[in-house]
Amino acid sequence: MDLAAYLPFWNKLSDAERRSLDAATTQRRFAKGTVLHRGSEDCTGLMLIESGRLRVFTVSDEGRELTIYHLIDRDICLFSAPCILHSVDFDVLVAVEDEAVVDIIAAPVYRQLMDTNVDVANFTNELMASRFSDVMWLFDQVMNRRIDARLAALLVEECDQEGSSVLSVTHEQLGNHLGSPREVVTRMLKYLQTEGLVKLGRGSIEIVDEAGLRALAGDSLR
Amino acid sequence: MDLAAYLPFWNKLSDAERRSLDAATTQRRFAKGTVLHRGSEDCTGLMLIESGRLRVFTVSDEGRELTIYHLIDRDICLFSAPCILHSVDFDVLVAVEDEAVVDIIAAPVYRQLMDTNVDVANFTNELMASRFSDVMWLFDQVMNRRIDARLAALLVEECDQEGSSVLSVTHEQLGNHLGSPREVVTRMLKYLQTEGLVKLGRGSIEIVDEAGLRALAGDSLR
Repeated sequence: MDLAAYLPFWNKLSDAERRSLDAATTQRRFAKGTVLHRGSEDCTGLMLIESGRLRVFTVSDEGRELTIYHLIDRDICLFSAPCILHSVDFDVLVAVEDEAVVDIIAAPVYRQLMDTNVDVANFTNELMASRFSDVMWLFDQVMNRRIDARLAALLVEECDQEGSSVLSVTHEQLGNHLGSPREVVTRMLKYLQTEGLVKLGRGSIEIVDEAGLRALAGDSLR
Repeated sequence: MDLAAYLPFWNKLSDAERRSLDAATTQRRFAKGTVLHRGSEDCTGLMLIESGRLRVFTVSDEGRELTIYHLIDRDICLFSAPCILHSVDFDVLVAVEDEAVVDIIAAPVYRQLMDTNVDVANFTNELMASRFSDVMWLFDQVMNRRIDARLAALLVEECDQEGSSVLSVTHEQLGNHLGSPREVVTRMLKYLQTEGLVKLGRGSIEIVDEAGLRALAGDSLR
């Protein structure tokens, strides 16, 4: 566990501050599917992702999920510690998509550091501005892009992620990423199949024409 | 112009810091309709709203607007100074809805204060977390609420704002608030009229049954 590699303010901390952060950090390994964090009641702590992939998402009252962003190596999850910011009044959930090794910094220790160290406070500012930008980008996508482009982008990204052109993802899982009902995803996948871009199997989706999907995705591919 | 009333960190500033903030602040009056800020290229400065009402919104490539929040008395507009945060990479526009008196703090002076004063940095954090929460709330609304509930909520809010049950707002303006095409708004208004909730005139919308609109709006009314 090498906090210096994750935290750009490390060099500006005093020895005492470094010792306190070190002592407040625990490394844990989580299996795929684990839900690490559930909404603002939960103040798990700041998460530094050493390896693996986490999904940060919201759930509507009706149970519909929407992926707001993913976190991978060296990313930091701020909203797993909502209690460090009084003005956060929304809930996100964090789940493990690929087995993950995560360093968790206890929220009170981080908060105390934020209160006294201007570099830590401004690092937190930049981290939040960056997530805010992700959400604004997604919002624009949802409001203004067609579902076909967003689905095409998602398939290409899953393909890159899995390193395979055959995806074993369900229509419901795709819907959860896009914030769309399963029926909408199924209808759109059938359309993509008629266009010769994918081939639907039992519980699998084969990417037949990745270039075609990329063209359809356009700037929905970030 | 009384910065102490707007900035909770005022009492924690040194005399030199206060003088520098005072010198960097200009008070201006803007007429209804003025666009104060256009996207991230523009770094107008931090805006403190003394009176009036500002609308913060995004515009899609196709020109469709979406109101993300309003700012009124004593609110502070952070994203009119996007250059103070390196990680902001989205564009918002700020326009005057009701004649406004605004104190503008020059961005470089505020940024310098943030860099050296932990209270200013953490104030900025809370301000951003609060706007982030607004956006997440709206996102949930857009993804999960029906357009009829959102339109009903908007009509009730406009009614409160105008202090009149007859609104002289166009269908296009309502669409710009909701991020919906004008045709969708018109169709929905006609539906609300058949339900006896509103009465459509030439260039006006009369609220006939406010209680009914409130019931329809449900928790879309914040």
